[in-house]
Amino acid sequence: MLIVKKFGGSSIADAEKVFNVARRIAHSYDEGNDVVVVLSAQGDTTDDLIAKAKEINPKPSRREMDMLLSTGEQQAVALMAMALNSMGYSAISLNAHQVGMYTSSTYSNARLRNIDTERVMAEIERKNIVLITGFQGMNRFDDITTLGRGGSDTTAVALAAALKANRCEIYTDVDGIYTADPRAVESATKLSEVTYDEMLELASLGARVLHNRSVELAKKYHVELVVRSSLNYNEGTVVKEVCKMEKMLISGVATDKDVARISVIGVSDEPGIAFHLFRLLAKHKINVDIILQSVGREGTKDITFTIAKDHLEETLQVLKENQERLTFKEMAYDENVAKVSVVGAGMASNPGVAAKMFEALYDAHINIQMISTSEIKISVLIEEDKAKAAMNAIHDKFQLGNIKARR
Amino acid sequence: MLIVKKFGGSSIADAEKVFNVARRIAHSYDEGNDVVVVLSAQGDTTDDLIAKAKEINPKPSRREMDMLLSTGEQQAVALMAMALNSMGYSAISLNAHQVGMYTSSTYSNARLRNIDTERVMAEIERKNIVLITGFQGMNRFDDITTLGRGGSDTTAVALAAALKANRCEIYTDVDGIYTADPRAVESATKLSEVTYDEMLELASLGARVLHNRSVELAKKYHVELVVRSSLNYNEGTVVKEVCKMEKMLISGVATDKDVARISVIGVSDEPGIAFHLFRLLAKHKINVDIILQSVGREGTKDITFTIAKDHLEETLQVLKENQERLTFKEMAYDENVAKVSVVGAGMASNPGVAAKMFEALYDAHINIQMISTSEIKISVLIEEDKAKAAMNAIHDKFQLGNIKARR
Repeated sequence: MLIVKKFGGSSIADAEKVFNVARRIAHSYDEGNDVVVVLSAQGDTTDDLIAKAKEINPKPSRREMDMLLSTGEQQAVALMAMALNSMGYSAISLNAHQVGMYTSSTYSNARLRNIDTERVMAEIERKNIVLITGFQGMNRFDDITTLGRGGSDTTAVALAAALKANRCEIYTDVDGIYTADPRAVESATKLSEVTYDEMLELASLGARVLHNRSVELAKKYHVELVVRSSLNYNEGTVVKEVCKMEKMLISGVATDKDVARISVIGVSDEPGIAFHLFRLLAKHKINVDIILQSVGREGTKDITFTIAKDHLEETLQVLKENQERLTFKEMAYDENVAKVSVVGAGMASNPGVAAKMFEALYDAHINIQMISTSEIKISVLIEEDKAKAAMNAIHDKFQLGNIKARR
Repeated sequence: MLIVKKFGGSSIADAEKVFNVARRIAHSYDEGNDVVVVLSAQGDTTDDLIAKAKEINPKPSRREMDMLLSTGEQQAVALMAMALNSMGYSAISLNAHQVGMYTSSTYSNARLRNIDTERVMAEIERKNIVLITGFQGMNRFDDITTLGRGGSDTTAVALAAALKANRCEIYTDVDGIYTADPRAVESATKLSEVTYDEMLELASLGARVLHNRSVELAKKYHVELVVRSSLNYNEGTVVKEVCKMEKMLISGVATDKDVARISVIGVSDEPGIAFHLFRLLAKHKINVDIILQSVGREGTKDITFTIAKDHLEETLQVLKENQERLTFKEMAYDENVAKVSVVGAGMASNPGVAAKMFEALYDAHINIQMISTSEIKISVLIEEDKAKAAMNAIHDKFQLGNIKARR
């Protein structure tokens, strides 16, 4: 089997941890697999380099920043090769240029375009364990780029796709994907499988184990993803197209507290106002999530929507500057809100899910402020302090604690 | 003018020092020059990386070591670009792969083979200050190599040759090349010019400002070298083919204390023994410097030679193991010796130099143990404790303190 494994920076933060991961890699190689490993920079390396750069230039050019930061991963793969060598294994480190990992030109947030597989395949044929720098690529100017948030996961999935690997294993500090955050819901159960779409919804809802970019890529190229712990040999969660657990109504409950709610009140009831409003926000790159429009008094209407908390100030500013054009009378906002969602591929064909969720919240005396639904997700906006209670109520109602982890 | 400048790691050890060098570079650019800069890794970066590697693997593979160490220079050039940017200058950093700096395959001690100039020239035409990683290259396998000791100086000179630069400036923590080590000889004077050959002799004699590899390269490609301080704007020393000071008999006095003397006594007087002896040492990569052969008692002879101190133990071992074959009766050695040399292109046509040097030593009551001469150098082996006195005596005799630094 050809397996691509990805380890994050915290799992290789010091020499001891490097050897932990090295043993893990060696174990898989000893089982007869061809092993390709993607690594992030060790521990705080990236943060230290950023601090060093900011000391010299508070607004460093993105090109030079990528040139600087990419060294962290290069150090990590070289050190891991040395560790494997010292254990008697043949290993070789490769950076993005050596692999031929081509990206778009955008520095600091490049997209992977194309991966040469020749060098990597040659090293695999030589029975080398191949260690590859995550998070980085090179653009058509021959310059180093980095992939932005979740970059190393994306590198691993893209490599798995290009190499036609049998699976791509993402190692983290948790055992896999859970039906809810185990810190908030005691009875949370690890899922043995989820679909790509469920994973996408769960990831965007605060279950920040995998970055969405990597899941989308895995879905596009049918890469079987496994999320598992680097600290034990538990099975982890498989992310794939179709799950054996199709009968399962919902696969998890997730909470996102990075939400603020804004209302513009008394908007004149003429066509195009809402369109203007959201185009304006889009122009400022402010993402709007749930939207609610209600009829107000005296032929006016109220528009309420949610955004990420750190966009709140800018949003209020933009709205204020355009009050006349947007015709609203007043604004209101609330940061003390949370979005709780149930996710499950099974709910598409089952209309009772929403009712069951609302019943759970009603029983727990939790007021629903807004509702949003998609094919495989139902989200409600509630008071932030009630988030944990809501998760538990929903988790119990759907008996998610009883899911047997099976493969 | 197109100028290649090289700065060592200690001169860019922290943010403040980075800006010192950045101002220096900017000054030259403001004078209307095209500026290419070669940098070493900052301060202790390389040592820290070596320590990190050794913690993981006491004998790391050289390939992986080069992969690891090359990140230090890449960080340095990126940070310098950021510093220049913040001062309002256009600058771009390039690593060995981006430049196209091709070397032999030998990891950790590669030789530069060929440098592409296309990218660098394009950046110069865009009026960019071009910052290039010293010490590293890439081999025909597309792997990163490093150039070994004095690597960054070599990078700078090779770039100057490839770009047909008007000059190559090597910045150090001293003002230039002196007639003697200023710490040992108070009247030591800075030379305004020396020839490549003189520089080669001086460098190999312990005036460790420039590594011989870079001087040899400069000589081969007629690159005008300037050695100057990064701490002030003094003129420094120009190293070139022919000096204006041809009439100067000698250009400097140098001392090398890293010397041990070995004697094999009572070698039977038959042909080929000396040949066997030195071939044996060459096989063990032990460099022999001065050799003296004298007739001993009873038809035997004694052979005395000098080597570097850290080869002493191995040499004695090798000799002992081959005592029978080499036919000698006993061995003697002395570590308490120093080699004092006068260097000067002028002495080739002036037979009086040796006599004058010996007279100086005689007057100072210093006994000469061995003598070695070349076209532009006379070396004597003396007691180590007398080295400083010898240097001063010779320096005074040749009135080196009276040389006017001129251009």
